[in-house]
Order: sequence, then C-alpha cells, then structure tokens
Amino acid sequence: MNAEIIAVGSEMLTPSRVDTNSLWLTDQLNAMGVEVAQKAVVGDHRGRLAGAIREALGRSELVILSGGLGPTEDDLTREAVADATGRVLALNDTVLEAIATRFARLGRTMAEINKRQAYILAGAEVLPNPRGTAPGQWLELPEGRVVLLLPGPPGELKPLFENEALPRLRRLVPPLAIATLEFRVAGMPESDLDQLISPVYRRYENPVTTVLAKPGDIQVIFRARCATREEAERLVREMGDQVRPLLGDRVYSENGDPLEKVIGEMLLARAATLVVAESCTGGLLGARLTEVAGSSAWFRGGRIVYSMDEKRALIGDFTEDPVSEAVARRLAVCARERSGSTFALSITGVAGPDGGTEANPVGTVWIVLAGPGVVMARRFRFPGERARVRGFAVQNALEMLRRQMCEPVR
Amino acid sequence: MNAEIIAVGSEMLTPSRVDTNSLWLTDQLNAMGVEVAQKAVVGDHRGRLAGAIREALGRSELVILSGGLGPTEDDLTREAVADATGRVLALNDTVLEAIATRFARLGRTMAEINKRQAYILAGAEVLPNPRGTAPGQWLELPEGRVVLLLPGPPGELKPLFENEALPRLRRLVPPLAIATLEFRVAGMPESDLDQLISPVYRRYENPVTTVLAKPGDIQVIFRARCATREEAERLVREMGDQVRPLLGDRVYSENGDPLEKVIGEMLLARAATLVVAESCTGGLLGARLTEVAGSSAWFRGGRIVYSMDEKRALIGDFTEDPVSEAVARRLAVCARERSGSTFALSITGVAGPDGGTEANPVGTVWIVLAGPGVVMARRFRFPGERARVRGFAVQNALEMLRRQMCEPVR
Repeated sequence: MNAEIIAVGSEMLTPSRVDTNSLWLTDQLNAMGVEVAQKAVVGDHRGRLAGAIREALGRSELVILSGGLGPTEDDLTREAVADATGRVLALNDTVLEAIATRFARLGRTMAEINKRQAYILAGAEVLPNPRGTAPGQWLELPEGRVVLLLPGPPGELKPLFENEALPRLRRLVPPLAIATLEFRVAGMPESDLDQLISPVYRRYENPVTTVLAKPGDIQVIFRARCATREEAERLVREMGDQVRPLLGDRVYSENGDPLEKVIGEMLLARAATLVVAESCTGGLLGARLTEVAGSSAWFRGGRIVYSMDEKRALIGDFTEDPVSEAVARRLAVCARERSGSTFALSITGVAGPDGGTEANPVGTVWIVLAGPGVVMARRFRFPGERARVRGFAVQNALEMLRRQMCEPVR
Repeated sequence: MNAEIIAVGSEMLTPSRVDTNSLWLTDQLNAMGVEVAQKAVVGDHRGRLAGAIREALGRSELVILSGGLGPTEDDLTREAVADATGRVLALNDTVLEAIATRFARLGRTMAEINKRQAYILAGAEVLPNPRGTAPGQWLELPEGRVVLLLPGPPGELKPLFENEALPRLRRLVPPLAIATLEFRVAGMPESDLDQLISPVYRRYENPVTTVLAKPGDIQVIFRARCATREEAERLVREMGDQVRPLLGDRVYSENGDPLEKVIGEMLLARAATLVVAESCTGGLLGARLTEVAGSSAWFRGGRIVYSMDEKRALIGDFTEDPVSEAVARRLAVCARERSGSTFALSITGVAGPDGGTEANPVGTVWIVLAGPGVVMARRFRFPGERARVRGFAVQNALEMLRRQMCEPVR
C-alpha cells in the first residue's frame, strides 16, 4: 500500500515551520509496511487543498491530512475533502455534545465557532480525540481508497493515529512482522559513528538502518520487516550483534529509552538520588530529568545558581572565575552535602552569544560530578550557538553520571 | 507571483529527513513579495515527478525543484521536467567541459555517469555551480511560467539561488514592499481570540493574517504587501489599531518577542530581579528565562524543590499538601526573602500522568508571585499530558509576573 501525507495550514508554508508530523507518521506507516510515496504542504485555501486531495487519491490508496480541523474560518480540511470526494458534510450531534462536554469540564463555555468541528463527512467514521476538540475522521472510498483526517497538534495527532487509525489500517494491510532494535549512543559525533558502523549496515537491505542525531546524542534504529516475527527478530539480532562491539559502552540503551530515563532507572536500582547545581543551563538539566514521569523517586531538585549571589549562597564567598574548575567543584560538592543526595551534578559555563573571554571563550563549560568517594571535573568546549551549547552541556552531564554508575563500585 | 517548491529524492520521504531547503527558499521568495503557495516532496520516480511538475505549473507561475540533479540513475529531475514541459534534453558541450575541468582540478578523472549532469533542457539557461558538478537550469515557458532546477546540497543551492536565480527573478517580479506586525498574546484560548478578532481581519485580503498557537501563547501575524513601503506600513498599522483594543493588555509584544524576553526588559527597566522556586516544572521556568541572552542582568536563579526535602530546606517543616496554596505561598515568599530579589515565582502542582488525587487531579498547579507589597496565588487546572501541563504552568507564571509589572506602582 502507498500513502501520501498532506500537511494543511498556511503557517506551514512560512520560513520557520517544518512538518514534523509527517516524519512521525512515515515511521508508523513504514513499520507496518506502508510506503510514503509523496508529501505535500498546502495552505488554508479550499480550492488548492481539494485539488491536492484529488490528485493524491488518483495516485495512492491512503491519503492522510494533518491539520485544518480547528474551529476558525481558515480551517478548511473538512470542506476540501467534501469537495474532492463529493461527500456532504453534516452536523453530528454526538460529536457536538462531546465538544460541549469537554468545554464544560474545563469550566468554559463553548464558542459558537467550535460547532464547525462537529461536521462529519457522509460515510466517515468519527475518531474520538480525548486531548482536543477536533475529532479525526476515517473515510473509506470505493476501490479501497482511504482518506484520514487528523488534527495538527502532535499531542493530539499521535494518540489518535495510534489508537484509532492504526487498528483500522491493520484490517486493510497484509500483516508483516516487524522487529526493531534501537541503540542510543552518547558522546560521539555522527560522522564518526557512521564511519564505524556503515560497513556493517550497508551490507543489509533488510533491516533498514536509520541514524538520527541531536547534540551529543545519536539514535541508531534497525528495522526488519519479514513474513514471520522470528525471521525479523533474527535479522535485527544479527545486526545488533555486529554493531554492539563496535560502539561498546557508548551505547546507553537498546530499547530507545532516552538518557534521562536510563539514568533514573540506574539511580533507582541503587536506591540513589541526584541533585543539580546549574549556572549557564539555568534549570535545563532539571527540566530534562523531570520529563521522566515518576522522577521524584530519584531526583531531589537543586539550585539554579545563575547569579553570583546565588552561587555564593550555595558555596560561600569565592574569588575565582565563576567558570572555573574550582567553582564547579564547590558547586557540586556543596549541593551534594547540603541535600544529602548520593550524587550531584554541577554545570557552569559560557553559553553565549556574549560573555566569552580569552581564557573561557563562548562554548566553554565545566561539568562536575560529585558522588560517594568521587569528585570528577571535566572541561568542555562546545560548538554552536546558545541553545546548542546548553543542550550539549546537559547531555554530557547526564553521560558523566551514567558512566560513573557503570563503573564497578570501589 | 506564486511559487511552488518540490524537493526531489526518495531519502526525503524517510522518517528522519526534513526539507530545510524549502524554508530558506521561502524566506528568500517572501522577501521579494513572492508567496509560496504549495510544497511537495517527491521520490526518485520519473512519472510521479513529472506529474507533480505538471500540476504545479498548472497552478503557479514559478516552480522550483531542489535535488535530483546528481549523476546516478535515480537522479531524474532533468528527465521529469523534460516530460512535463515537452522540452528535449541535449548534451551541452560547454557544461561537459566545465565538469571535466572541475574533476581535473580536484585531481580526479570524470566518471562516465557524470555526463548525465551535462544534459540541458532546450531553451533553458545554464546556471553555473562553482561548488558542485551539477549546474542549475532556468527555463522560461510561455505564459510567464518558470521552472528552476537547483542542486539539493544546501551549500550549492543557496549561492546558486542568490547569484543566478534572484537577479533573473527580479526581472519578472514587480518590486513589492512588505510590512509585518506581530502581536503576541498570553492567557487566552485560540478559539476565543479568533472569535474576537476575525470580524476585523476577515475584511482584509491584504494584510494576510496568520494565527499560531502554543500552550497559553498565541502569535497573530499581519503581513501587507504593497507597491510602496508607506502603503504596506499604513495597512498593517490600520489593522493593528483595530485589533489592539479588542485584545487589550493580553497583548504582550508587538514585534514578535517571546514572553520571557518582554519580562526581562520590564525587569531591567525597573532594575528589578527575579528568582524561582520550581516543583513540578523541575527547572523548566528557569530554563526558559535563561534562553534569553543576557538574562543574568535580571534573573538570579533559584531552587528546584522537586522533593519534600528540598521544599523543607527552603521553607522549613510543613504538614500541608505540597500542592496547596499555603506551600506555594511559602515557597515564593522564602525564595524571595532568602535571595533578596525583587520578585519570586513559585510553581507546585501535579504534572501527571500519576500522582493525581481527588483534591488535586492531574493538571492542578498552584502558582504564586511574591513581590514588593504583594503575594498573589492562583490555582490552575491545565488540560493535557505531562509536557503540556508543565508548558502551561511556565507560561502562566510568566504572564502573572508581566501583569503585575503592568499595574501602576502602589
């Protein structure tokens, strides 16, 4: 089966917006053996949108639309699909009631324009959207064509696709067994990693290999598609067994878990806790650790020591440069002592764009890990602008802690 | 003039690849008054690609293709444009020589397949590409249509567009002046805002209005395109003057600045400083404030009081629920007193997915602002999952502080 994805919305045609929904959808579709044959971005223009839908239906079995289901006049996906397929739109009382109930539960009155979101295409199945007002719609057409309407916000689109669209798709697509293996790797540039492992993965058409890189963090995903589950699992295992020794302990998870989750599990297993003392990252390390639900079991909190005063309140008076090994060490040691935590991580550096000196140019960051019987300091020089430097700093702080916990206990 | 951009290449249809060329091109085109009306991504498939080009030429004056100009068999852009326009492709000796010279300069021999890159469409102008082997092509068709073929690598595409395509485009596009006005609005659902202002903006085709929403934050962008700068500026001013009174003090910036930047400027103007005490947001408020370069002039830092121990270390012993007005108040008041800052913001709540109680269901968040002569507490109930609740909490904390600073000093 071939699919096409159309992202709807004039804002998606501006220089600053990227259609990330289609990437996630592509991943989901590929996993069940559906190929994405073409993608489009169309503005809030009924005629253009209807045309794009008509063209896509002429080429591909499945057409997925994301966005344009909002309550305003420029949300035209429903109308455009009606135009392209010749189906009428009718007000659905059940959907209308669900929308009104949702508003009531949040203590608000439903605006009159939200009624537009209760219009459903004739013959379409309503896909309930517990996280938003706009329901999705699943419309099966003659000759096995399907149009799927999904809301644009990723937090609504993803669960709606997983819970409602996937089970319906599985009825239409011949079952294919899939096995995946996802290595997550820290502390290695993407090009170095690729040079290391591409001689292995290039020998295989199946599994397919995808390499994704963020600052200091790489995902390597192997996905095999076979007639049987056993065969698919054997293939990714075979690949993993060859790649694992090449990457060694730089692999921190083999199931796609992010670094903060892996660290949380390691801390939990040791009944250990963590605090932070953050200067240039200003809370970003804490924010990332607390993305993990249940992190209160191992993350205690800490200090955002952005100003000199806040640093002094934690470590007492000092005369050294705030971006120095001495200050970074005292931040970690004092944060640990004051809180009684097992571990403390401190970060102090120059995130830029200003504030660089000859001794500490922009991108210079000290990270210290203090733990039982250990205080470990590292100086980094990260490339790129402010957000990138801060992202690298957080990632490397987490990786220092993970490596320490991998060491045999002394 | 309307443009469409087609990114060519099957790798652009994988879950990990985003078409960033089109963002840069859109910025360039918009700056000269050309709108991007539609975008597409098409794989290395001659029939599909020719179809997409034909469709785009039926709708828009300018069709830009990026990629598919390489030397291999799956680089099919040249052939597809020939199919779509009925033009023949012919080997161009001058181009062939340039390619051979380039290889010789790099000390390499030209592979036979590179000859493919010297095929030029009948009637097209060759756009020399000093950074790569594939030249661009500029093909003017009857009825003022243009097809522009550009190489895919951004390092080749950008200079080629700037040096070769832009001057040619300027001959075709009447000079147009652009003026924009960007309101940023806090504390209002998108549908309420739209109901309020759409009666105004719907009366105008020019300026064009775009409304973008994030949790608790809305951008309203008006863009006018006119023959003169004065006229464009007059139009967005006229629109702004009608919309401003409808939104009142919910507008926090008129130049697109984000809330944290606006707050920083307000604090700086008052020589005031800010600290935070974050529980459920775990550092996210501090992280957002310190996204602003130079924020050390007004942001002091604070405490991440994720655990009970860290809360007690700040406010002393307590018996109340940690998600309560009493605890939230003491967090803010103590954070302010200990640091000597002008303002303190505290956040404590249930971000979910677990931890909800009957009294405090998931999404319940207390936010307190403490300042000179004021301690203000608000209880919120935010919808959605963990990341959304945390995003709303941070946004509403910032908005409480902004509103307080808008009040006349007592």
